[in-house]
Parts: sequence; C-alpha cells; structure tokens
Amino acid sequence: MSAPLPPHPPSPGPHSRDNGDGLPARERIGAWFIGARGSVATTAAVGISALGAGLADVTGCVTELPGVAGPDLPLPGDIVIGGHDITAVPLVKRAEELSTAGVLPAHLPRVLAGPLADVETRLRPGIRHVGAASRREAADRVEADLRAFQAEHRLDRVVVVDLSATEPPAPVDDVFATPAAWERALDGGAAAPPTSSLYAYAALRAGCSFVAFTPSPSIRLPALTTMARQMGIPWAGSDAKTGETLVKAALAPMFATRALRVRSWSSVNLLGGGDGATLADPDNAASKIASKARGLEAILGHPVEGPLHIDHVPHLGDWKTAWDHISFEGFLEVRMNLQFTWSGCDSALAAPLVLDLVRLMSRAHRAGENGPVGALGFFFKDPAGSDEHRLAAQWDALVAWRGRHGAEGRA
Amino acid sequence: MSAPLPPHPPSPGPHSRDNGDGLPARERIGAWFIGARGSVATTAAVGISALGAGLADVTGCVTELPGVAGPDLPLPGDIVIGGHDITAVPLVKRAEELSTAGVLPAHLPRVLAGPLADVETRLRPGIRHVGAASRREAADRVEADLRAFQAEHRLDRVVVVDLSATEPPAPVDDVFATPAAWERALDGGAAAPPTSSLYAYAALRAGCSFVAFTPSPSIRLPALTTMARQMGIPWAGSDAKTGETLVKAALAPMFATRALRVRSWSSVNLLGGGDGATLADPDNAASKIASKARGLEAILGHPVEGPLHIDHVPHLGDWKTAWDHISFEGFLEVRMNLQFTWSGCDSALAAPLVLDLVRLMSRAHRAGENGPVGALGFFFKDPAGSDEHRLAAQWDALVAWRGRHGAEGRA
Amino acid sequence: MSAPLPPHPPSPGPHSRDNGDGLPARERIGAWFIGARGSVATTAAVGISALGAGLADVTGCVTELPGVAGPDLPLPGDIVIGGHDITAVPLVKRAEELSTAGVLPAHLPRVLAGPLADVETRLRPGIRHVGAASRREAADRVEADLRAFQAEHRLDRVVVVDLSATEPPAPVDDVFATPAAWERALDGGAAAPPTSSLYAYAALRAGCSFVAFTPSPSIRLPALTTMARQMGIPWAGSDAKTGETLVKAALAPMFATRALRVRSWSSVNLLGGGDGATLADPDNAASKIASKARGLEAILGHPVEGPLHIDHVPHLGDWKTAWDHISFEGFLEVRMNLQFTWSGCDSALAAPLVLDLVRLMSRAHRAGENGPVGALGFFFKDPAGSDEHRLAAQWDALVAWRGRHGAEGRA
Amino acid sequence: MSAPLPPHPPSPGPHSRDNGDGLPARERIGAWFIGARGSVATTAAVGISALGAGLADVTGCVTELPGVAGPDLPLPGDIVIGGHDITAVPLVKRAEELSTAGVLPAHLPRVLAGPLADVETRLRPGIRHVGAASRREAADRVEADLRAFQAEHRLDRVVVVDLSATEPPAPVDDVFATPAAWERALDGGAAAPPTSSLYAYAALRAGCSFVAFTPSPSIRLPALTTMARQMGIPWAGSDAKTGETLVKAALAPMFATRALRVRSWSSVNLLGGGDGATLADPDNAASKIASKARGLEAILGHPVEGPLHIDHVPHLGDWKTAWDHISFEGFLEVRMNLQFTWSGCDSALAAPLVLDLVRLMSRAHRAGENGPVGALGFFFKDPAGSDEHRLAAQWDALVAWRGRHGAEGRA
Repeated sequence: MSAPLPPHPPSPGPHSRDNGDGLPARERIGAWFIGARGSVATTAAVGISALGAGLADVTGCVTELPGVAGPDLPLPGDIVIGGHDITAVPLVKRAEELSTAGVLPAHLPRVLAGPLADVETRLRPGIRHVGAASRREAADRVEADLRAFQAEHRLDRVVVVDLSATEPPAPVDDVFATPAAWERALDGGAAAPPTSSLYAYAALRAGCSFVAFTPSPSIRLPALTTMARQMGIPWAGSDAKTGETLVKAALAPMFATRALRVRSWSSVNLLGGGDGATLADPDNAASKIASKARGLEAILGHPVEGPLHIDHVPHLGDWKTAWDHISFEGFLEVRMNLQFTWSGCDSALAAPLVLDLVRLMSRAHRAGENGPVGALGFFFKDPAGSDEHRLAAQWDALVAWRGRHGAEGRA
Repeated sequence: MSAPLPPHPPSPGPHSRDNGDGLPARERIGAWFIGARGSVATTAAVGISALGAGLADVTGCVTELPGVAGPDLPLPGDIVIGGHDITAVPLVKRAEELSTAGVLPAHLPRVLAGPLADVETRLRPGIRHVGAASRREAADRVEADLRAFQAEHRLDRVVVVDLSATEPPAPVDDVFATPAAWERALDGGAAAPPTSSLYAYAALRAGCSFVAFTPSPSIRLPALTTMARQMGIPWAGSDAKTGETLVKAALAPMFATRALRVRSWSSVNLLGGGDGATLADPDNAASKIASKARGLEAILGHPVEGPLHIDHVPHLGDWKTAWDHISFEGFLEVRMNLQFTWSGCDSALAAPLVLDLVRLMSRAHRAGENGPVGALGFFFKDPAGSDEHRLAAQWDALVAWRGRHGAEGRA
Repeated sequence: MSAPLPPHPPSPGPHSRDNGDGLPARERIGAWFIGARGSVATTAAVGISALGAGLADVTGCVTELPGVAGPDLPLPGDIVIGGHDITAVPLVKRAEELSTAGVLPAHLPRVLAGPLADVETRLRPGIRHVGAASRREAADRVEADLRAFQAEHRLDRVVVVDLSATEPPAPVDDVFATPAAWERALDGGAAAPPTSSLYAYAALRAGCSFVAFTPSPSIRLPALTTMARQMGIPWAGSDAKTGETLVKAALAPMFATRALRVRSWSSVNLLGGGDGATLADPDNAASKIASKARGLEAILGHPVEGPLHIDHVPHLGDWKTAWDHISFEGFLEVRMNLQFTWSGCDSALAAPLVLDLVRLMSRAHRAGENGPVGALGFFFKDPAGSDEHRLAAQWDALVAWRGRHGAEGRA
Repeated sequence: MSAPLPPHPPSPGPHSRDNGDGLPARERIGAWFIGARGSVATTAAVGISALGAGLADVTGCVTELPGVAGPDLPLPGDIVIGGHDITAVPLVKRAEELSTAGVLPAHLPRVLAGPLADVETRLRPGIRHVGAASRREAADRVEADLRAFQAEHRLDRVVVVDLSATEPPAPVDDVFATPAAWERALDGGAAAPPTSSLYAYAALRAGCSFVAFTPSPSIRLPALTTMARQMGIPWAGSDAKTGETLVKAALAPMFATRALRVRSWSSVNLLGGGDGATLADPDNAASKIASKARGLEAILGHPVEGPLHIDHVPHLGDWKTAWDHISFEGFLEVRMNLQFTWSGCDSALAAPLVLDLVRLMSRAHRAGENGPVGALGFFFKDPAGSDEHRLAAQWDALVAWRGRHGAEGRA
C-alpha cells in the first residue's frame, strides 16, 4: 500500500475534459489553505509537492487504499496550492523549522525549495482585526483572492480547507441563523461573525467547496449551512480525527459489541506547538473538547464520567501524547480497565488527510453533491451529515460512497 | 443493555414444540463443559445460574445486545449444565475460591449453593492417562455420558464446550487426516490422538454440537472436521478472544484504514491462575501464540515484527495484564507509537461468551447448519470457517447471521 | 519484614514507668483522629486493632523496618483510639463498606466488631458550622474531649491526627500570624479560622502532639507553629505522601544525579471516594496541588512545565490511578521520556502511615522535641522542618533520627 | 547544570605536572575504546569532541554535577581518543548514520569532521577469529597498540573502555581462576579465553585502567581481577546502567523503605540496533539478564517472580522501550501495581557515562587505587567492589569518594 507514486508528467492543461484515451480527464484542482503557513498546512504543502515529484510514498494517504483510490481522483501533481495566513514567515522557513523538529525529513525542504517558492507566490494576507465596519470588505477580499486563484491557474475546482488556529465556539445568536440575518451582520451589528465563518462565506460565494478541518465555527453556522445547500455546494467537517479520538472511535465499539459496561473514560492530551498554545486558552479548547466528547457517548449509548484535558506542554513541540484510562465492568460486576498512550506527530497525521479531503471534496463537487458530505465522517471527530461515530462503520460508509462514484461511469 | 433479566418460570417441559401462544417454543438445552471444574466453567455455571435466578445482570452477554438477542435463543434458566473434569474438587468450593479471589461477588456461591449442587450431580470423571489400548473405550464412555445426560434431562440439544487446559498443537499425521484413519488410530497405533479430540469425537458421535473455546486441537483435526460435515453437525472455534487479542482486532483495522504502516507490534501477557501455569509450558503455549499471531497479519496484510510473550506470574491469579507496544510510520516516514495495557479478569471475560456460544450453537444446530459456523468468528482468535479477523466486520457478520434466523420465521 | 506481629498481653497498666525487666516501660498511647469515620481513619482503626490482635501482618508499616523499629515505640495493642467526626455513621458500618469495596479483607469487620465497638464509644461529634460567636466554644469543647480521653484511659500521651477532608488554603491574614492575634480571632472578627486549625489549637492546649496528615491549614498557621514552639509540643506534617508523589520523590533524584534535564512533568490523578469528591472542588484541590508541586522543583533545582490534575472519577472508589509523563533531554539534546501509572488503594497506603506517625510522634514527644519534626519528612509531600524532598535522603534522615533515640538509652 | 562548557585552549603539553598557577596540573588522558566504531563509542567520540570544542552542553554528564565535578578531573579537550574495532566503516560515516537516526544533531558530524578524522587515524583492527595458537599473539598486539598510543600522544594515563558487543558469560573453568593458569591458557588449550578478556589482559599489561562497560566477562575473570590487584591497577564495572535498570534502582528502594511487599516485577526490553541484534542470541543475552536481575533481589532482600525479556525489534533502531509491571501488596493484603514505560536512546544515555568513567578512572589511577573501584557502582548494573544497588546510596558513595579526592589536596 505504500510504494512511491510514480512521478508523472505535468497535467496536460486546464479544463481539459478528455484525454482521448478513454481514461478520466485529468483535472487541475486548487487546494486553498486558511492558515497556510501553519504546521499542518506546511506539512501538507511539502507532502503534496513531494508526492507530485515522486519523492515520498503514500503512507498515511487514505485515498491510496483499495476501496477508496480511483482514477477519478486528482493526482497530487495536479493540485495547485494557495492560501491565506496572517503571518508572513516564508513557507520554506517554516518547512525548515519542521525539519529541525523531526516532522519533515531533513532533505525535503531543500529539495523542494522550488515548488515551495511557487506556493509562496500564491499566499495572500489573512483576515485580521476585522471591525464591524470592515466585515463585508474582508469577506469580499477573500472571495476575490479565491476567484483570482482559480482564474489564473485555470483550475477546474477549488477546495478551501480551514487549517487556521481553533476559535472558540460561536455564540448562539439569531444573526447567525439565516442567510438574510448573516448578510445584515456583515454590514455591522453587535454580534461579530467568527473569522473562520467569514472565510467559509467567501468560499461559498466563490463557488468553492469547503473543509472544516478544525472545530472552529466556520461553515457550521446555520446561516452558512443553509447557504451551502441553496448554492449546491458540498462541504465536509468538522475537526479532523488524527490521534486520541481516532483510537477512541476504534476502541469504543469493542466495548459496546462485547456488552462491557464502560464506567469511566478519562483522557489527557499533552501537546506543544501552535495548536497547544491555542488550546491552552480554555475558550478555544471548548470547541475541541465538545467535539472530542460527542463521539463516545454516541457509540456507547450513554454518558460516561471522566475528565477530558487538553494541556499545553511546549517542550513536546509538534508531538502529541495522549493517555486514556477506561474503567469498565464485565460479567458479575467484575471491574477491569484498559489504558493506552498515543504518541503521535500531529502534523504528520493531519497532512495526508488534507490531501485526502481535497481529492474527495473535489470529487464530491464534480458529482454534484451539496451540503454536508456525511460519507466523509471517517475523517472527523464531529461528522457533519452523519450520526455515525464508529470508525469501522465510517470506513464502510466511505468505501460504499466511493463505490457509487465508480458506478457513475466516467465523465 | 444491562438491566437484570427478569426471573422467569421454569421451562414448561422438555421437547415441547409449541407453547400455543405463537411464541417460539421454549426448549431445554444442555451445556456440557469439558473441564467443568476449571475457573471459566465454574464462573459460567455460577453466572448462568445467577441469570436464571434473576440475580445478575447481562453485562458481558453478547446475546443480549440488539441485533443478536432474540426470542429464538434459549433462556439461561432453560440451560442444564453438566460436564467432565479430571479433578474432583466440589464445584461450590471452586466457586468460593473464585469469590475470595474477587472473580465472583462474595454472596453468590452461598446463594446459589443449591443450583451448584445440582450441577455437581451432573459432573462425570474426565479422560486421563489414556493408553493405546483404551482410546476407543475412553471415547465410548464420554459418548455414553453425553447420551445419558440428554436422555435423563430430556434435552432438545446439547452443546459441548471444551474449557479444559490448553494442549500442545497436534502433530501433523496421516492418521488424523481422514475419518477412516482416525477410527483405526482409536484402536491403537503410534500416534496418540489428543485428548481434546477424543472428547470432540465423542460429541459428534452423540450428535452434539461443539465449541472449541481453547486453542487445543479438539475438533480441528481434519478427520473430525470431515466427520462433522458428513454428520451434519455444526461447530465453532477456536480460542475465544477475551483480552489482548480482542483489543488487537479492534485496533489493527484502524491502522490499516488510515494507511499507517505498522512496523512492529510487541505483546506481553502476564497471567497467573491455572491457565498461566499451563501456558508456562512452551509446548502448550505454542497453540495459543500461533492463534494470537494469525489475526494481526491477516488484518494488516503483511507480517509484522515483534515478540509475543505469554508469562506465568502466579501472584496475578485470575487477573491478566497485557502490554502491547505498536510502532508505526505515518506520512513522510514519521515514526510514532501506541501502547496499551489491558487489565482484565480472564474468567469474567470468558464466562458470558460460554453462555453466548451455547445459545448460538444450539440455534445453529436447530437451523440445520453443519461444519464450522464462520459467522461466530467474532468470538474467536482463530475463526473457523472465516478469514475475517477485523472485529467490527465480525460483528457485522454475526448480526447479519442472526438477521437470517429472524427471517426464517418461527418453528 | 512482614511476619505477623505476635499477639501480646494487654498493657500492664497506665503510667507504668518500669516493667522490672530492664525493657523500656510499656506505655499507653492515645491516637485521636479528626475525621474518625472517614476511610483512612476507619482503615487505620481496623488495622491497628488487627495488629493488636495478631490478625494482620506489618506490611506497609515503616516502623517495623530495621533502622526504624525499636522497643521504645508503643505496640499496636497499647494504642487507644478515639476521635471526632461530623457524621454519625457507625464505624463498623464504614468498615463493612470498605470491606465490600475490597479495601479491607472480607472477614475483618466481623472479627473485630468488638474492638470497633469500643472505639465507637470514644468518638465525639466534630465541629460544624462554627460561627464567629462560637469559635472559642468549639475549640474549648474539643480540648475538653481530648483531656477527658487522656484522663479516662490513663494515657501517657495523646497524638492528634488530622484525617478530615481537605480544606482550601488559609488566606494570608494578620490575625493568623501571632498567638495573640489568633486568640482575638477566636473571640470574633471577619477572618474565620479554618476548622482544621481550631482542632490543632485545641490539641496544643490539651498538650497533645499533632500530625497534619492532609494539606489543610491546621497547625501550619504561623500563630499555631509559634504556639507549639512556645509550649514545647512537637508536630509533623503535612500531607502524607501515599501515591504518585511518593513515586515522584523516588524518581526525580534519578534524573538529577544523572544530569538528565527534565523538561516537562505532567501528572494526572484519577480518584473516586470521599477524597476525590472533596478535591473535585478547585478551592480544596489548591492545597493539594500546591503541596504536590513543591517537591519536584526542590529536587530538580528548577521549575518544570506540565499540568497537575486531580480529577474525581466516582467509579474508581477508593482506588487511585495516577499517570505521570516525564519528558527529558539527555546528551546532545536527545529527547526521551518516561511514563508511569500508579494504581493504588489510598486508604490502604495511608493507614499504616497513621500508625507509624502515632508511634513516632509519641516518641518525639517523650524525647522532648518541640516544633516541626523535620526527620519525619519521609512521610510528607510538604515536609515541615525540612527542605529535603528526595525520598532516599528522607529515609536516611529518619533512620539517623531513630538512631539518636537508641543512643538516648532507656527512660 | 547544563551550560555549555567554555571552549578552552589546547593542553599545554604532556606530562606537565604543574601549571605554575597553583591549579592542578592539566593532564593528557587517553580514552581507548574496544568496539570503537559502534554506536556508543561513536556517540562518545562525537560528544567528547563537541564538548572540547564548546559545541555541546554537559547534559547527561555526571562529572559536571556539584559533588562530583572538580578541577582534578581531565577536561574533555584533554582527552585523546583511540580504539580497536573489527569493522572498518569510517567513523564519520557511522556518525552520519547516527545523525540520520536522530541520535546525533544533524549538523555535528559535518562540523566535527576534522576531529573525527583525527580519531580515525588512531583506530586499530580488533581481535577476530583467534585460534588456540594465536591467543598470546593477539593479546600482545593489543598491548603494543596501547603502548604505542600512550607514547605517541604523550599521555599521562590511558583508560581502556570495553564498548564491544556483549559476549556470553564465560564458562567457569580452572584455567580462568588464577594468573598462572591464564598464562598457560594463552599458549593453547581447550578453554578459549573470551575475546573481551584478551583485551582486558592486554590493558593490564600495558598499565592501563579498565572499564567493563558491558556485561561481557572481560576483566571479571578471577585470573584477571587477581592480576589487576597484584599490578596495582584500578578497574570499574560492569554493565553500565542506562535505562530500565536505572529506573529499577531508583524505584525498588521506595518499596523497601515503605514496607510494601513486591510480589512480582516483570520487565520487557524492546530494542533495535546492534545491541538488540546481539542480544537476540539467548547466549549473549544471558550475561545481560543475569546482571539486570541481580540488583532487584539485593535491594528487596528476597527473590521476586516475573519474567525479564530482552527482545530485538529492528524497527526501533537505537531507541529502547522498556515496560515494567510491578505488583505489590500493602497493608491488610491489598494488592496494587505500578507500571512504567521508559523510552530512551541507548547511545545518548551511555555516551556521557563513557566520558564520566574515563575521567573518574583516570583520577582513581592517579590516586593510586587498585582493583575494583566500588565507589563507581552508581554507573553499573552489577557493581564490582560493592554490594550496594540502591541508586541514591550509590550516589552518596560516589560523592563521598570524590570528597576524599578533594581532601587529598593537589598533586
């Protein structure tokens, strides 16, 4: 499953609909990252470039597995990367930092300096300090950036992926409830739209599909989900499942199908890096904690006691260590327990999922899906468009959905 | 899922085929345990008695879960327990020992002294020190015990469950390859049939279905699997999945479906108790280690390095602690790891599965199945009649199989 | 080290100063528990009674180890137990609950029903809801209870041990700074003295030595430490080291003496039971967290990042599970880590230390020590009278102190 | 404790006994590594060079800690490295491999290419395939290499450190019992001297002190320990304590001094790299397992059940993961447990100890010690010249020994 992808010739050109050889037309797809200079986005940019150049293998890429892969998905080399970020640290410098930290192989930033410099030219300043008077202007500017990106690179479709720092949950407010109220809020008013939602709105306006990779509000405000449905645009989210929650989604069904009664499930997440610093603020962590907790109760069918901590430990850098302790009862009330420790590199786990979601959302968009794509729940802690949290069942749903694409025939 | 079963009136009588109320006929089922005085069998006897008397809840019982439960399964109170054992320690004494060790609630052995004394009357001496001249005689005696049990208690069907100490793997020998050769081996010859296989043979002869709960050879010799098929008798096995392998079967598919490359999987099992002492002998452990290792490679699709130890630590008693360390690679060759520690009570985990398998094998037998029942692979480390080792897929297969029973209509 | 103590004849009588055989005089010592019906106090009462009756061995008792043991320490059978508590649940009932929970052997509460009923007669109502007007009255009543206890049972000395629920840290306030200000505060005023400090004050007034077994303020207010010194009364504290902090105190010096640079030390404590419920209140936990954190920095010589959580997980009951994750750097900046999981029974760990401290404080009092006995820092998270937090060095100090007792000759 | 050492001027010259400034004379010391191209030796060579050049800090160096450090110890820049090895892979290539594996910082091999090339010129071919006829010749050649090294570099003293692959335990044989018998064995005979012992013998003959860093027989044969004593040469060993055993030595005294009864202690060591491959051979592992097991029983005062595994898991490379599970009993027979997982980089842990031991053995030699230096037991699993296995007590002994050096005054 992890042989290197053969390098392949550059895409024959944009908007080509037929290669004349009966194979699916090769398309050029845009991947636009909000938070494009962050660790996950940088790792994704390096990784997609490396795959395109035949310098990496596909370990970690779900879209290369039998049942999910297919010639109807864009090739890494046909994906053009751009994005917004509020910082200006050069992408290649970020790549070098990640290399020093052991997240990226030492040689890659150097070898890929050219492609990364190309991506650099496609990065635009992000939205910062937006006041009541400048909300619409900010959204308009993002929309214009997206339209320019698509036009300039003659892209068949663009997928916008929110990889920026987690925001606190949005307040429940009428102004976020309907498209009309949202439009009024853009022109001023007390309730400030979350920045992530300004990006999502701009993406919809530009006709781009959207991936809520973090737990930030972004497209999940009712106003925007309605708008996506009305505009016929698909989206996926939210909060990619990269570590401890992934293990939970695999393990919790074991207890359920063995009729073992889980009595407590305690979780501690230690992480450094930018994500850790953001989540050290309890307001921001609230989004994450809520999306982490949801799945367990859904799988087990009852609430379960036990703390869920997210702690910032700067020394750990991009590495994340999670400890879970599960106490459960078996036959005749015997008490037992299971504990696990997950030591993962957050960016290395997230980056291939970014590629997967760009490919799959591009495919969903082409297939005419709109609204939340529940079949992509496999990738998320808080799956939109689906109530399924069991990992294996999510996998089955993903494979079934991909099977329907195959049945569609070729475009 | 874990409310106590309501106590129910005693079965109306044997061989009743219709209750006149349109409900499935209540049947009387025999559960015959090889190794009936061991920890698992004793816990099963206490537990089934407790459930029948409304003194325990159904935690741990798979056959009480939605999708598996059904009115076509025998009730705990309609199951009559008997068995063979080579020791003579009174069952109630064994129950008290387990109670002192914390495996059984303190009050149960006393409260259930009556039902346990009844079971005691149905225990027969097991096969020991069988020589070349006495093989057939031993098998004949076991068969006679089973026939007498069924007749005396007017049982609709009997399920024989091998719960005795694990034997070493059987040598590959022509005399175990066909029914005819087996029959000759019973009358003498160099190759001694495994004792567990003598029991399995007797079970088939007596028309009983069979469960290979341990990794001992028992019914898995080619001669006997052929015989079961010819006689139209169903069986299930082998080696019930109660702890560390259960977790493996839940976790390994997570790595596979996320395209994470497992590079090593090291396992250590520390256990005391009778099972631990038996497995301290490398010959006996060989069966267990082989059946534990099989699933991982099947799920991941490639061999994985790493030791698999089973160690006897007497102080741990019936509690089993397993540590697994998994190293894996993700995107761009980043190395990560997961480790887990499972602390379980072996008998408490195994006993409800014994009940489940008695109920389900009885049902399979009634449905006319024969040979290995692959749909019961959910319960086993080394599933007969199935190549599926992924826990969730095994669960789906079990639920589908039970769905077909429902579709059969009522007898 | 863990042979059962031989049962011994009842003490020959109070205040005897000589047995006529040259051995140290046998004394009768009072152990007075604040929070006498709590889990730790109940376990201590059962355990001391069991040791006195020859029904338990001395596992867990530091004062039975070579280097610490000595004929100058009171025998368990010569210790008379009494105490205060604000609840009225009979002690024998509490013992039965602990037995059901697996903290005490099943048979002990029944076998020791007589001795426990005796203790019951010596329990008095604790201080509750004390208003500004009733502070002195409350303290006076406690003092009177202590004096009556000593007189009635003709005790050579009484050791008061605070085993009640942890209180929040005391505010820093002038009224707690000097004995004179304290006396005024007793007669009213805005600053309410912590209840634990009312008990400590009463103990001093009654001439009893005192053990601050919890992190509550109790005797550690400057007013009371001054008073103890002035009155020539010894005390020890605070916050007994029973689990995760004990391991820390053993492990942290390893890093220090190997020049390994600890970069983060994260701790999670999951506990049920009464202590867990008390500590679920962040105000109360503040005392504990402060005393847990102090030692690490003292041993390593620099502050260390990492969270320290105390979480209430009711299902765990009296069992406490702690997970610590330590990241450290070695030669040439290589990053490594150590993690440990401690699964202990809090009351079983604490109770023998209660016995140890009663014996040793009684001895210190007899030896004429006053103020904080730093040599007992081995037992505490936040040792009074000592800056030493390294477990092995604390052990050496304890053994040296006991050696000086031996050198004193016999009274 | 871990500020970079200031770079310092090259040593003023050999055999200088006085700097004229009252400071202790600076000496030139030789460090001769058996197995000089292995991971530990290469890391030590890189690390000592880096310290000498002011390019690394002293994390991990015990001889830089207060209580151990002193101006009487040689500076890293005054240590000249040489050695034997049976392979010929260039040292700088080995350093690059270790750098790729994350053991050494990426930039160091390049920056230190010069000093490493210098070391390369001082490496000599090791002993291989020695037959009965060539034993003495092999030892003579090693002795000559050592004498030439000392003369050429005008070294005050040379310390030989055995860092080569672990050998199986030596058979107990009369020919290894006395110096005279050993000399005869060198000239032929059935009993082949262990290769490590040939090196140790040559070291003694050349007047060099010796460090048994591995559990190989080397200097521990009675013939050679006698010879060392007779020749007035000090040595230290054996089997450096770098990981799991280090933790054991810190933790086991905690149980002992708390009177907690350890009932089982199970250990699993997973390691890749060259050491892992060597120890995958049960014969070689026997040495290691024996030296690992010795300490625990010595500390606890009684044997403890539980397995001790050393497993080769190639994918782990130079990283070593150990899991220990300890079950113990407390007061009133309550059962509890502690488990820990140690994830360390073997070479990074061992290399600074090599520097420490070169400095300290050089000092011991100068001080006129002979035979096993028990005060260095702090560094070893199986301390020669000492029965002390408790880590803190070993530390105290080391500090006391260093204190005596200070008291000697200056040479």
